[in-house]
Amino acid sequence: MAERLAGKPVVEKIAEELGSRIGSLAERGVECGLALLRIGERPDDLSYERTAVKRAESLGIKLRRTVLEDGASQDEIEAAIDGINRDASAHGCLMFRPLPGDIDEQAVCDTLKTEKDIDGISSAALAAVFMDRDFGFAPCTAAACMRMLDFYGIPLEGAHVVVVGRSLVIGKPIAMMLLRRNATVTLCHSRTKDLASTMRAADIVVCATGRARMFGPDCFSPGQTVLDVGINFDDDGNLCGDVDFDAVEPIVGAITPVPGGVGSVTTSVLMAHAVEAAERSVGV
Amino acid sequence: MAERLAGKPVVEKIAEELGSRIGSLAERGVECGLALLRIGERPDDLSYERTAVKRAESLGIKLRRTVLEDGASQDEIEAAIDGINRDASAHGCLMFRPLPGDIDEQAVCDTLKTEKDIDGISSAALAAVFMDRDFGFAPCTAAACMRMLDFYGIPLEGAHVVVVGRSLVIGKPIAMMLLRRNATVTLCHSRTKDLASTMRAADIVVCATGRARMFGPDCFSPGQTVLDVGINFDDDGNLCGDVDFDAVEPIVGAITPVPGGVGSVTTSVLMAHAVEAAERSVGV
Repeated sequence: MAERLAGKPVVEKIAEELGSRIGSLAERGVECGLALLRIGERPDDLSYERTAVKRAESLGIKLRRTVLEDGASQDEIEAAIDGINRDASAHGCLMFRPLPGDIDEQAVCDTLKTEKDIDGISSAALAAVFMDRDFGFAPCTAAACMRMLDFYGIPLEGAHVVVVGRSLVIGKPIAMMLLRRNATVTLCHSRTKDLASTMRAADIVVCATGRARMFGPDCFSPGQTVLDVGINFDDDGNLCGDVDFDAVEPIVGAITPVPGGVGSVTTSVLMAHAVEAAERSVGV
Repeated sequence: MAERLAGKPVVEKIAEELGSRIGSLAERGVECGLALLRIGERPDDLSYERTAVKRAESLGIKLRRTVLEDGASQDEIEAAIDGINRDASAHGCLMFRPLPGDIDEQAVCDTLKTEKDIDGISSAALAAVFMDRDFGFAPCTAAACMRMLDFYGIPLEGAHVVVVGRSLVIGKPIAMMLLRRNATVTLCHSRTKDLASTMRAADIVVCATGRARMFGPDCFSPGQTVLDVGINFDDDGNLCGDVDFDAVEPIVGAITPVPGGVGSVTTSVLMAHAVEAAERSVGV
């Protein structure tokens, strides 16, 4: 039986840390503010928003919501971002993605001020991740994976990590973050040959393909740590990860469940980034 | 005996391509211009400069040289870059690095306009490499490696490439460029465990550590393609790569020599980038 790397204690630890930091900010007269920007009414966005609202309220982070109609133009979306840039009470911004229609999403992302980009969506934030520079914020999901690994004391120095998936939301940024911690990193994807044997050879595997239960027991070996970043629905409408948890869990050393794993920590990391943005704004 | 992946035919092919493109630019009244910025008189810089001058002259690319004294201040160096940014006759800029003293090198690099940054030294150019975006230019050495692989018809799709070295000049950018071509990429470095066996398992190995003859026959296996990016001097003052060429060449399938390999192509790629910058400046 693998160690179950649950998100809950990580979420609790972050909440505890943030509680005192939000308190210190309040003593300086600063109320940490988070702007949410949503276009349209996609169920995924609404679901993430509900979680974010709940978490922010429980921590005492003030929310400022901007909702545009599905069909909003490039100019309208960029104007909304500009409003958030100019709003001194919003220290960070979460924009739900992907944006609908034929919007140039990266142009929108690059409109957001780097210091408010708490989900690492702008080119400047991603450049900082690539270049190991200490400004901006990494994408929350990648940062959540690092939090999980650190919380559970998984050694990274010299570890061989296989990352499956090469997106800018998770695969590429976590590869850079792991490299910075002196892990050896292999980036795999849909065109990788011998994927299962490559995965089996790793100390740590990060699965981030977004394909329901894609990885079965043939992809894993005893003692491995598995981070399952996928949030998918199977044919029966059940929430599941990229890993076939029931089949894989008896084999590996440690594994994150879905739900209740990495995904549950992501919202906490978003809040932590918002608090850090507020701290940086007053020079803490 | 391995196939010897010499730089010369690649250099010749690039020169041929550039000849006709420089001709087309001339017909439009555009003389391709390259600015060189050197601080001090480091022998490495002077050597690279001589090569660049010779190559530019042979192609008909106009050079504009700016030399500052060793000890130039941050402001003076940034002012020089600013002059190059404003000089319409300079389409690209090569600044010799590393900069001496306690200069904030990245701040200097980020002063250069992205469209003139033909060696991928600015954050914007590196972000584009990380994000697979088609603007800016990749670092020349990484681009030279890709040119070599393509010239010699080495298949990249699905290939497993081990990159040793994680610098922003070569290791990280080439990893992204290979990933874009659907290779599976493992990034290794000084803290990698079992480095030799990891290297032996690859289809292609890129050695970019800058340590003279660090990699012997134990690191390689039959059929592999080896790109040796190192330009080092051994204890006897002889130019050599990161690979112990004489010992490794009998084992592998193909290998770049040092000198006469990747390094010799880098200057040609710099010229190709300058020509492309000139073309982009007039909307070709």
